[in-house]
Amino acid sequence: MSDHQDTLAWAYLSAVAEPPSTSVVRLIEAVGVREAARAVSTRRVPDGHHDVLRATAARSGYDGARGDLETAARMDGRLITPEDEEWPGWALHALTLSTTASRGGPPMALWVRGRGRLDTIVDRAAAIVGSRASSQYGEHVTSRLASGLAAAGRGVVSGGAYGIDGSAHRATLASDGATVAVLACGFDIDYPSGHERLFAEIVRTGVVVSEYAPGTSAARHRFLTRNRLVAALSKAVVVVEAGRRSGSLSTAAWAVKAGVPVGAVPGPVTSATSLGCHRMIRDGQAQLVMDADDVERLISPDGTDTGAVTRRPDERVLDDVQARVRDAIPGRGSATIAEIAFAAGIEVSRTRPALAMLETYGLVASDGSGWRLPAR
Amino acid sequence: MSDHQDTLAWAYLSAVAEPPSTSVVRLIEAVGVREAARAVSTRRVPDGHHDVLRATAARSGYDGARGDLETAARMDGRLITPEDEEWPGWALHALTLSTTASRGGPPMALWVRGRGRLDTIVDRAAAIVGSRASSQYGEHVTSRLASGLAAAGRGVVSGGAYGIDGSAHRATLASDGATVAVLACGFDIDYPSGHERLFAEIVRTGVVVSEYAPGTSAARHRFLTRNRLVAALSKAVVVVEAGRRSGSLSTAAWAVKAGVPVGAVPGPVTSATSLGCHRMIRDGQAQLVMDADDVERLISPDGTDTGAVTRRPDERVLDDVQARVRDAIPGRGSATIAEIAFAAGIEVSRTRPALAMLETYGLVASDGSGWRLPAR
Repeated sequence: MSDHQDTLAWAYLSAVAEPPSTSVVRLIEAVGVREAARAVSTRRVPDGHHDVLRATAARSGYDGARGDLETAARMDGRLITPEDEEWPGWALHALTLSTTASRGGPPMALWVRGRGRLDTIVDRAAAIVGSRASSQYGEHVTSRLASGLAAAGRGVVSGGAYGIDGSAHRATLASDGATVAVLACGFDIDYPSGHERLFAEIVRTGVVVSEYAPGTSAARHRFLTRNRLVAALSKAVVVVEAGRRSGSLSTAAWAVKAGVPVGAVPGPVTSATSLGCHRMIRDGQAQLVMDADDVERLISPDGTDTGAVTRRPDERVLDDVQARVRDAIPGRGSATIAEIAFAAGIEVSRTRPALAMLETYGLVASDGSGWRLPAR
Repeated sequence: MSDHQDTLAWAYLSAVAEPPSTSVVRLIEAVGVREAARAVSTRRVPDGHHDVLRATAARSGYDGARGDLETAARMDGRLITPEDEEWPGWALHALTLSTTASRGGPPMALWVRGRGRLDTIVDRAAAIVGSRASSQYGEHVTSRLASGLAAAGRGVVSGGAYGIDGSAHRATLASDGATVAVLACGFDIDYPSGHERLFAEIVRTGVVVSEYAPGTSAARHRFLTRNRLVAALSKAVVVVEAGRRSGSLSTAAWAVKAGVPVGAVPGPVTSATSLGCHRMIRDGQAQLVMDADDVERLISPDGTDTGAVTRRPDERVLDDVQARVRDAIPGRGSATIAEIAFAAGIEVSRTRPALAMLETYGLVASDGSGWRLPAR
């Protein structure tokens, strides 16, 4: 029951402000999700959180949570949050570093459809994105790349659009790979409509994901916001074809901000759909990639990919929460997130991303049942 | 008469050792060209120059100088040496830095045909090179590039081969630009034979140049040696199409050694003739270039191209000869090369490249009639 109350609160808050809403995320972290939902709906927020009122002014009176959850259930979908195992916490952590940038914060929650498990797929996934107005050449290269990545055991993330995105999803499916479509609308909306059947195939093994509540329609600014999720959920972003002002250039820019390596595929210099790729390579914003092997090199330049970022920083770079969580890991054996959160005196929702970050640093290890200090 | 004796000596020496012969160049610098020719033909060389004997062992008994000069005269050609105004001394100076590398030294002399003036053309020229087995795409891009460079007042240097080279020469001529073909055989030999007419057109306004004496046939190692001249005679080297083992990759490698910026044109990743270009870009050996504007940026990244290298090094990098030549420039007015050479106590043949290098450093200036200190 209490879990269900939480879920209702998450669902309500996911629709009440335009994502990504840093102010609502902060409020949830401060008072918990149920109290945050109550505060927003009653318009009585704690001191220091009044920015929430403006972010939720337009929609706070409308509670579509039950209906949205029913829609999700009907479509075999689910709402995942930072408290769920499936939450790709460490992948999304990079977005917490860019909250000052416009539309740059982490998602509050994700609406997910499909039999694939989001966190597992994105743990080894690369994004392939590009122009909707793709050429035959671009689609051919996309198919080669996607099947090469699938053969190497990598999932392929893309935006579900016509053109390069669609080719990437299709070729991955054809190679029995896992693919993730990140939508700029509710996951119950087949946009573009011509991809209804494609989305139906994706969810059989992969995932369709959106930070927008069911029923939310696609809009221009949502494509740009969506692009940051494509970047964050990938170990590398590869742009296959991009015209002068292609949206995939924004995905590449998000990747740079999130520390995700960017590749671009060259093409004929006489082709307008390769212009964006060539400029990025020329100007040092992307590495030239020809094939899936080049993407592997992009992800692990020294050939030592572990499926996770392998930086191991000086411990001094840990923030307070990360340091407290690290200190709460038992010296012997392992502990659950709840145990660690309790020991650290930090909420589970903040403990999880801290653990994820510590894991990418190699300072903690996960053994399936819990977390422990890494083997020496 | 004395000049003619010099010319005969240069012609003899240019044929007596396989270029580039560092040992013969050193001997000429040490004892002058006529004494060097006498030493080689009589097999009596000064102490410290015995390496000359081996380099000239096979051909010292054959003096084709008169015949070669007659061939040149018949073809409206000429032999230019470091003592001639037309000698592109500063361009070739970079090769003196790489004499330890195989086949890396400067040419001893150059056999030149054509109404163009070599030093003037290469002062602002870029090289366009590439695969003989070029695609239609490659030839199209080459034509665009060459005419763009010609429109910007730049000459185009290439190797006179089929494929990309031929397209580069032709498009430059079609745009009324000056083009330089650097051959791997004597300039009296139309190799490849299908380019006989092309070479005849090049010499009407441009230059066909070779360091090989008339009658020398093309050979595999001469193509590689020739490539270093293409690189040195250019402000930038652009590779349009290159397969996995294209000779144009060696031109690019020479350019890197000589400090000449290298560009490569991308193409479809499905095209084997673009593989070499893509690898160079991917591995950081070449900048991606799409058009003539990109080549301009390659030559002068800050948009301040003066047609010459603009480095101005700390004076401590000057070698002894350069320092002595610099000190021999009069404080007021200008001096001829002969005057400066006399004042410095250094032969004219060594004074000229030193002046050229000092000019590129901005430490001396040429005013047409002579050399002076630069205006402050």
